[in-house]
Amino acid sequence: MKKLLTHAVTFARIETALKPFADQISPLIIDDQGQMSHPWGESEADGAIVFGNTDAFFGPAAREFFKTVLTLEKLDWFQSSAAGLEHPMLQAIGGKADVYTSSHQQSEAIAEWVLWAGFDYFQRGAERRKAQAEAQWTRLPFREISSTHWLILGFGGIGQAVGRRIRALGGTVTGVRRSGGEDPAANEIISMNEVPGYLTRADVVLLCLPHTPDTENIAGADFFAAMKPETLFINVGRGALVDETALLAGLDAGRPAHAALDVFQVEPQPADGAFWHRNDVTMTAHMSATTAQARARTDTVFLDNLALFLAGREMKNTVPASEFS
Amino acid sequence: MKKLLTHAVTFARIETALKPFADQISPLIIDDQGQMSHPWGESEADGAIVFGNTDAFFGPAAREFFKTVLTLEKLDWFQSSAAGLEHPMLQAIGGKADVYTSSHQQSEAIAEWVLWAGFDYFQRGAERRKAQAEAQWTRLPFREISSTHWLILGFGGIGQAVGRRIRALGGTVTGVRRSGGEDPAANEIISMNEVPGYLTRADVVLLCLPHTPDTENIAGADFFAAMKPETLFINVGRGALVDETALLAGLDAGRPAHAALDVFQVEPQPADGAFWHRNDVTMTAHMSATTAQARARTDTVFLDNLALFLAGREMKNTVPASEFS
Repeated sequence: MKKLLTHAVTFARIETALKPFADQISPLIIDDQGQMSHPWGESEADGAIVFGNTDAFFGPAAREFFKTVLTLEKLDWFQSSAAGLEHPMLQAIGGKADVYTSSHQQSEAIAEWVLWAGFDYFQRGAERRKAQAEAQWTRLPFREISSTHWLILGFGGIGQAVGRRIRALGGTVTGVRRSGGEDPAANEIISMNEVPGYLTRADVVLLCLPHTPDTENIAGADFFAAMKPETLFINVGRGALVDETALLAGLDAGRPAHAALDVFQVEPQPADGAFWHRNDVTMTAHMSATTAQARARTDTVFLDNLALFLAGREMKNTVPASEFS
Repeated sequence: MKKLLTHAVTFARIETALKPFADQISPLIIDDQGQMSHPWGESEADGAIVFGNTDAFFGPAAREFFKTVLTLEKLDWFQSSAAGLEHPMLQAIGGKADVYTSSHQQSEAIAEWVLWAGFDYFQRGAERRKAQAEAQWTRLPFREISSTHWLILGFGGIGQAVGRRIRALGGTVTGVRRSGGEDPAANEIISMNEVPGYLTRADVVLLCLPHTPDTENIAGADFFAAMKPETLFINVGRGALVDETALLAGLDAGRPAHAALDVFQVEPQPADGAFWHRNDVTMTAHMSATTAQARARTDTVFLDNLALFLAGREMKNTVPASEFS
């Protein structure tokens, strides 16, 4: 018998699917008030499974959730809903868990967020809304995505999900990744040291890199200065990828012309943050993956892995221990 | 030798491509002030070709352009940039021209406009912008297009261009057209009398029908009342398809939840029009096709047809005389 710790909202969603495992797991749930309970009654257990997802990570009881995980006597397996590993809490959990599995089901949601930002920029959404607010019947010619060239730094799950969509829309995609090769989601794959030559001609520069010592502040003053005018810069990776002082100076200089940002050096952004009130910035609160569809796909990843775990089989998306310090 | 009448802006764009035909055509151009001129000098001609596009149709000298066309002694061929034929001026021109050709190069632009409207609705764009304006760090879960079902009334060039994109994004497409059959741009094709049963379950209802006696006011009170809550209604066809009084009442009743409109019964919409200041309406000024890319594709259609015409061969997209009253 293993304890299964998860958020109460998650449990309510997957309880029916958990029933077949009732003789092997003993659910322990935490709600938004930090209250813990055993919905199926308390049982003797010799270890624990944890399913950590956006309900737990982003809810008001996130601190209590992490504290509970880190004080478990034995953590057999931790399933994360996220692809990223660099958060200090996840690093600590990775060091403690016998097995840590990640999930890549957020890519499709994030790619749709990126398309939203791209369409609104190239179709002059802000000017359309201003014309409507002023009851002005004005024709505003716009640009088709089909004519745009996207430079995508980081061509893993998210980059590929964006690349597939841009190619389906007729646009051109240059993917950047260390491992090189070819990819059906890109017209071409280049390496990081080729990026400067491409910054001068891309219409969109998209960051979806992980945060590592190599990628920290990768978008700095030279990076922005190399862009052509009218470039759209998008960051859905991590705030630490961007030198925000350089980005603000770049926006003032028109390179990039516009930034669409879902992640920041400091999150939550403070009320007096420098990005909120700029017309050349579109920003959201680190939520580009928060769709019901991504949540459902992530539940499925966990449930599939649970069946494998309880059958003693190897799970999907296991992360090597070497990824945790 | 044939006169070639077109707008001055169009001529500037295609002059180089026209040069090879200099011994067969004599350009006559009209500018936004209604001034006519012969940029290559005046020549004796025994007939006329006209290329009418958005530069001419939507410019300030549109009236002078149409008057000039209709007073030509002999009109051998009229190339329109539009697919639609129901405008009274185009009807009159179709009755006068020996050959009338249309163009379907606006579909891709219109499909991108439709995606813009769809993404902004399902991603709660208005709420995101409000949160940004108020410097509120708020997570707003959104819905992926991948989970949406689109009912597309009129499954010609525009409907198919939208359908292809929605399917590439993982959504479900039901196309409606008289001719039935199958179509790779749709999961299924239904007939008009099946529409009521689908209105109750579509997430998006899109009109891209032509305006005919059969389609006039096709979207009326019963049409909107049959929709489920949270439906997005989009019209990129013709204003005459929609009973606007019924649409306004429908919006008040939450069916549809939101309307994205590029066309109206009265265009331009007057400053005191009923749609401008509604939060549940996104509106633009009949401009969903106004991209540089659509213009360039339309120029190519004309230039290809010009080569065929001057060689005495059959042109593409000829419209039967029976389409003109």
